[in-house]
Amino acid sequence: MIISTVSAIAALALLPSTFASRRRTSHIGGFLAGHVPAERELEQKVEGLVDPARAEANLRHLTSEPHMAGTEASRRVAQWLRDEYRSFGLDAEIVTYSVWLPLPREVRIELLSPVKQTLSSRDQPFDGDKQSSDPRAVVGFNAYSPSGDQTAPVVYANYGAEEDYRALEALGVEVQGKIILVRYGRIYRGVKAKLAEAHKAAGLLIYSDPQDDGYVVGDVYPRGPWRPLSAVQRGSVLYTQIYPGDPLTPGVAATPGASRIKPADAESLPHIPTAPINAQDASVIFASLGGQQAPRAWQGGLPLTYHVGPGAAQLHMKLIMDYGQRPIYDVIARLRGIDDNQWVMLGNHHDAWVFGAADPGSGTAAMLEAGRALGELARSGWKPRRTIVICQWDAEEPGLIGSTEWVEANLAPLEQKAVAYVNTDVGVTGPNFSAAATPSLAEFLRDVARDVQDPNSGGSIYDAWRGSVNRSKFEPTEKPDQAGGSVPVSGPPGEVPLGALGAGSDFCPFFDHAGIPSIDLSFTGPYGVYHSVFDDFYWMKNFGDPSFQYEAALARVLGVIALRLSEADILPFNYAEYASEITQATDDLAAQAQFGDANSAAEKPNDRLKVLSDASAQFASVAAAAAQALGSTPSTGLTPDRERAINAALVSVEQAFLSSDGVAGRPWYKHTIFAPGKNAGYTAEMVPGVSESLEDNDPGELTQEIDRLASALNRASARLKEVVRLASAPK
Amino acid sequence: MIISTVSAIAALALLPSTFASRRRTSHIGGFLAGHVPAERELEQKVEGLVDPARAEANLRHLTSEPHMAGTEASRRVAQWLRDEYRSFGLDAEIVTYSVWLPLPREVRIELLSPVKQTLSSRDQPFDGDKQSSDPRAVVGFNAYSPSGDQTAPVVYANYGAEEDYRALEALGVEVQGKIILVRYGRIYRGVKAKLAEAHKAAGLLIYSDPQDDGYVVGDVYPRGPWRPLSAVQRGSVLYTQIYPGDPLTPGVAATPGASRIKPADAESLPHIPTAPINAQDASVIFASLGGQQAPRAWQGGLPLTYHVGPGAAQLHMKLIMDYGQRPIYDVIARLRGIDDNQWVMLGNHHDAWVFGAADPGSGTAAMLEAGRALGELARSGWKPRRTIVICQWDAEEPGLIGSTEWVEANLAPLEQKAVAYVNTDVGVTGPNFSAAATPSLAEFLRDVARDVQDPNSGGSIYDAWRGSVNRSKFEPTEKPDQAGGSVPVSGPPGEVPLGALGAGSDFCPFFDHAGIPSIDLSFTGPYGVYHSVFDDFYWMKNFGDPSFQYEAALARVLGVIALRLSEADILPFNYAEYASEITQATDDLAAQAQFGDANSAAEKPNDRLKVLSDASAQFASVAAAAAQALGSTPSTGLTPDRERAINAALVSVEQAFLSSDGVAGRPWYKHTIFAPGKNAGYTAEMVPGVSESLEDNDPGELTQEIDRLASALNRASARLKEVVRLASAPK
Repeated sequence: MIISTVSAIAALALLPSTFASRRRTSHIGGFLAGHVPAERELEQKVEGLVDPARAEANLRHLTSEPHMAGTEASRRVAQWLRDEYRSFGLDAEIVTYSVWLPLPREVRIELLSPVKQTLSSRDQPFDGDKQSSDPRAVVGFNAYSPSGDQTAPVVYANYGAEEDYRALEALGVEVQGKIILVRYGRIYRGVKAKLAEAHKAAGLLIYSDPQDDGYVVGDVYPRGPWRPLSAVQRGSVLYTQIYPGDPLTPGVAATPGASRIKPADAESLPHIPTAPINAQDASVIFASLGGQQAPRAWQGGLPLTYHVGPGAAQLHMKLIMDYGQRPIYDVIARLRGIDDNQWVMLGNHHDAWVFGAADPGSGTAAMLEAGRALGELARSGWKPRRTIVICQWDAEEPGLIGSTEWVEANLAPLEQKAVAYVNTDVGVTGPNFSAAATPSLAEFLRDVARDVQDPNSGGSIYDAWRGSVNRSKFEPTEKPDQAGGSVPVSGPPGEVPLGALGAGSDFCPFFDHAGIPSIDLSFTGPYGVYHSVFDDFYWMKNFGDPSFQYEAALARVLGVIALRLSEADILPFNYAEYASEITQATDDLAAQAQFGDANSAAEKPNDRLKVLSDASAQFASVAAAAAQALGSTPSTGLTPDRERAINAALVSVEQAFLSSDGVAGRPWYKHTIFAPGKNAGYTAEMVPGVSESLEDNDPGELTQEIDRLASALNRASARLKEVVRLASAPK
Repeated sequence: MIISTVSAIAALALLPSTFASRRRTSHIGGFLAGHVPAERELEQKVEGLVDPARAEANLRHLTSEPHMAGTEASRRVAQWLRDEYRSFGLDAEIVTYSVWLPLPREVRIELLSPVKQTLSSRDQPFDGDKQSSDPRAVVGFNAYSPSGDQTAPVVYANYGAEEDYRALEALGVEVQGKIILVRYGRIYRGVKAKLAEAHKAAGLLIYSDPQDDGYVVGDVYPRGPWRPLSAVQRGSVLYTQIYPGDPLTPGVAATPGASRIKPADAESLPHIPTAPINAQDASVIFASLGGQQAPRAWQGGLPLTYHVGPGAAQLHMKLIMDYGQRPIYDVIARLRGIDDNQWVMLGNHHDAWVFGAADPGSGTAAMLEAGRALGELARSGWKPRRTIVICQWDAEEPGLIGSTEWVEANLAPLEQKAVAYVNTDVGVTGPNFSAAATPSLAEFLRDVARDVQDPNSGGSIYDAWRGSVNRSKFEPTEKPDQAGGSVPVSGPPGEVPLGALGAGSDFCPFFDHAGIPSIDLSFTGPYGVYHSVFDDFYWMKNFGDPSFQYEAALARVLGVIALRLSEADILPFNYAEYASEITQATDDLAAQAQFGDANSAAEKPNDRLKVLSDASAQFASVAAAAAQALGSTPSTGLTPDRERAINAALVSVEQAFLSSDGVAGRPWYKHTIFAPGKNAGYTAEMVPGVSESLEDNDPGELTQEIDRLASALNRASARLKEVVRLASAPK
């Protein structure tokens, strides 16, 4: 306790008075003017309570042993988290599901000719970092690969995207029956596996090219934060782009008594053996590949000329995967509010491939610290207006399983009660704030960033964020495209654009399946050790966040978000920005249709798209009316019931965008505006149903998708009309 | 003789009848209709006489030993060439000059710390190629580096261009007193040396990065044609961008009795020790460099993260260069014409850094074969209308010395008699035709390419050329930027654009100093062994031109060019294309001036540039009138005197572009329209005087340069007006 108090004072002392005074304005979006001082005081207290040393201690504990989902170590972490939240004064429980999970029993990858050589070398330990030689670290494997035993020639297929297979076909290179070697990056590894399967490959090897996250990008561990040649990227190849979560219980919770489909019927399970290898093993394969020189853009950073193969290389891969029903352990901690029927939710996963210092420990360490600060506040007599729920998911790594099963188990209460879901995953790898959000919360998030201090600059996080977005136009990306998964969408002119929510972390079931307005945030930096042994405490202490000041900043941001969403009089949703994103997307569709094949369909898609542009124009007009009716400061004359009704309507707009049929061919994905790209998997696709049916040039499907989207927009408009009515009607 | 006859018949048989008939049109630019059949017959005979087996035998002889300029081996090559041309029936002689030439006595480059390691390793021999281990190959060195002994920390400066030094300054990295490590490419190595000297470096190391001509681009020797890690690029650092040729006799021939300046006064001599190293030695230095990470664009293809330095690396370079007056041996062979006062000139150098199979042997082997075919034709009774002069220069490699001294020795007769100079240097490295030319000969060259067959496709070289230009937009460049030296300029719409003549080979003194209309041509392909031991017969036989069919094609092109320029009634100069290039350049200048600093000069440069646009508009109008007056087929009514007068006027336009004062600061470079870039060295700069004075923002210099250029344009217009008068006046 002494340490905590001293540190809290020290942290407060760090806030320069200029910054502190600048942010003490009398306005906070969604708050009655009279409620602002109290909110400011709460926020200041929570921020002052956050302690970098505590975050560091949290991370040290979380990274003390490898703790993969499905192992006893993962249960130990869950129990510790539950106990910690309880010690902070929260109601915390462990929720268990039984899911179909593989553990690797044997991974053997070897070149048989022209020379015989084993190619499943371990991450090379570094003496200065004891954890790097921990024998408990799981071997390199891709979760949900089937077992298999294949010997075949090798063909190199760049990133393994559909366009890469088209290029191979143009070169006359046969891929059927071959083991395909692809590099990590650009698209989700589960999409790589699905495309390799579609092209009838015998197997798939995915390696980390130094051009993508190794020495070409920057100094490698232990000299720097990027991936050394020996570091293999573990990771799941579950087809989460079809549906995430337990593959045997699509759409329903994996409770002990749930009815389960057969693995052979699970559309999210891959069918060809797939394994990751490190760059140095990949270079042995490349050295033995024959065939034509690879196209110039396929040349990576290894010191040789890349060929597409095949050739002398004969590769043998033998995978024995032990599949079974295994328990997973979600931790749900609640700080009950005055209104327990409104939930402000924060979440992050706790399972890790190995030590998981950045992924996910950095987010968990900060979330714990935010939870502790909120708990302290509650102990001092405050009770949140709405309930704050903090979730620590298990089994995110194999396929967003802990969050998906919980969402599927709690769909009805979530639809009724959840106000928003705020996710962080690879929470801190450096100082650059990064955020993706539903467009209705973009301005809210910018406001929070304006009011929290950036440790390096001493100014606001917002200003630092703006600076790093401008810089990043000229610098290599610092965020691995495997994590977080967001594409920038255009914000209002002059504002920092936020990313769109794709997939790749636990916001996916909340947003894409349940229609809960969601946010995903992190502080990013140079980070190449993703899913390797080296994502450990040493890495964080030497490269990611040596002083844990960004851990503290993340905890403060999470605390302020929780407080504002909990205490707001009117929830700070702004649908004008959402409307402008939708208008942009439907305009893009119209342009895309115009340049399509004019002769292919009797009816011009443009005529049908008119239905859409009308619906989105109506939504834009109602969104503007709602923003005006609500004003920037809520009216003091609203009754509590009226406030509650307005808030319920505001939250429900996101759910109005859901279609019960889901996106064409992917019924689990219900959101008509956003979905992870079918062939990208991480990055978001806008208006996915219409967009994909236009690409497929399927007039029947197009009509259906247009109807679904237009209906969704009309439903959303009706909700906002209700907001206008409630906000404008005589009090 | 039997071999030759048999092969000639075989070669004729290779011409498919479709191609042969297609090109038998009744029109050839510059020929009276009645003279076309005889010309066609001559061309067909010369083409038939060319024999790939002879070209191969020539190359085998030329590459039989290392034959660097200044050595006895170079004299042996010159004597053999003279004797060969004599055996073909040409008048051939050796012309000797005495020039200031260095030979390397000792090149020691070593890392002293953090580890001691020698860094001047030899090109690594390959057992399958005996020549690659020849002990007579000269060590890696840069000709005209001074002797020196320096120990200093190292700083990496990317390509060593001025913008790279600016970037280092922005990073706060001091270069003064350091040994600068730069990679080859982008700009002439002599410009790298001059800039390093200007920035007060202690020394300069230039290495070959695998990203530029090694494994990143393609398979390396002996698997492929690109540069292996051990292959060092030799080459001169003489400041030829100031003036080429013997550094002690600028502007005059280096005859025994010429007056010589002191080496200390020679503006073309570098002052800091400079040496080349191979990629594997460079990687040792990079591994020991400290300092910041290099900017992303500076990262090359070595398997490590590039830093800018300095750091632990302490480098020692000790160079002992033996300077002295040494003899060089040009070979001049003449096939006298009816009019010995008009010279059609072909040329290539014969000196090589080591074996020089591609550079320069491939061009020499083809030129010899063209000379033999023309000699055979003369023996059968034909006498050329104009004299054909074939030149084989010595000492091109150290600085265009053989050609420059000869041009300086023969300036007056050249101005009177030379019709055109046709150069080839790295004549054949693959199948892609490549050409640079004075714009007035661009259409002539396209016509020749339309009439000679491409060996691979069986169609015309023109069609293949067009195809390869289109492909090259999507493929890495195949021509080393060190050789040939040309930038594409825009041709007429729908036509293949030709390059502009920069520097880097022996056309430079003819074109830039003497104003002789010039052409540079070659067949290019993947070629990474430039200036290394591996540019040998094995390389050519395995990669460059295994069947010597492109050697034969080059000989045919040279033969047809010689015949057309020799036999034409009216010389095929077209100044309309030249005018359009000039108009484009002056328009660009006006645009450039507009976007410059409007406040910097009291008078707007645009007002002064008006003088230029008027002059170029007048030139364009006269060029159009001349083209119209001459028509596409010469009038039959011109007297021989009138024809001669028209031809003399047509040739003299290029000389009219010369200014006796030369380009600002570079008096040797007389051409006002084209010069090698001051800070690029290889690539051409258009209207260099005006362009550089605009960059320098020097109003006084700008006025002077505008006056010079406008006067040159007006002189050229006057020559063309004379053509119009002569072609239109009553016969």
